[in-house]
Amino acid sequence: MAHILQVDFTMEGPFGEEMAAAFHDLAVSIREEDGFQWKIWTENPDTKEAGGIYVFDTKDAAEKYLDMHTKRLAQFGITDVRSKVFAINETLTKVTDGPVE
Amino acid sequence: MAHILQVDFTMEGPFGEEMAAAFHDLAVSIREEDGFQWKIWTENPDTKEAGGIYVFDTKDAAEKYLDMHTKRLAQFGITDVRSKVFAINETLTKVTDGPVE
Repeated sequence: MAHILQVDFTMEGPFGEEMAAAFHDLAVSIREEDGFQWKIWTENPDTKEAGGIYVFDTKDAAEKYLDMHTKRLAQFGITDVRSKVFAINETLTKVTDGPVE
Repeated sequence: MAHILQVDFTMEGPFGEEMAAAFHDLAVSIREEDGFQWKIWTENPDTKEAGGIYVFDTKDAAEKYLDMHTKRLAQFGITDVRSKVFAINETLTKVTDGPVE
């Protein structure tokens, strides 16, 4: 069953198009992760926060990615990571047009 | 520009199909909120948490909904609400198939 992974953290930047250029290759690589469906990249230059909303095929795939991603963020000096993995209530999500298969 | 609202909170339940039945009318009403695009309903019976990932047309629409929704949750006795509003990095989100127009 598809699961949501939500991640956010404090970072100094870059944001916007500069962020897009810096992380393009990373974004391409994320498409190849096991069980990956999609990611929305989130950012807030005012509060110096960024993160992502992901859908994975299973809870296990979401948790494995989170473990790897947390270590990768630490390599970038980002250690203030907030994350949660959730099941999706499919019945309610259909009512509100949520883009989940 | 489309914005993400992520919300989660502690609650005793119900979860799953019982939650879907309890909140069906609320879900239908959310479709009519100003600037609303979609919501994915999230839940974790193990940690007794639930919430949602929303997309709104604008930051303003997301913040107005959050203000109203926080008051509504308080009426349900839910006061432990964690929420963030984020801009979407559209360039990176396209690379990772994020379902945002």
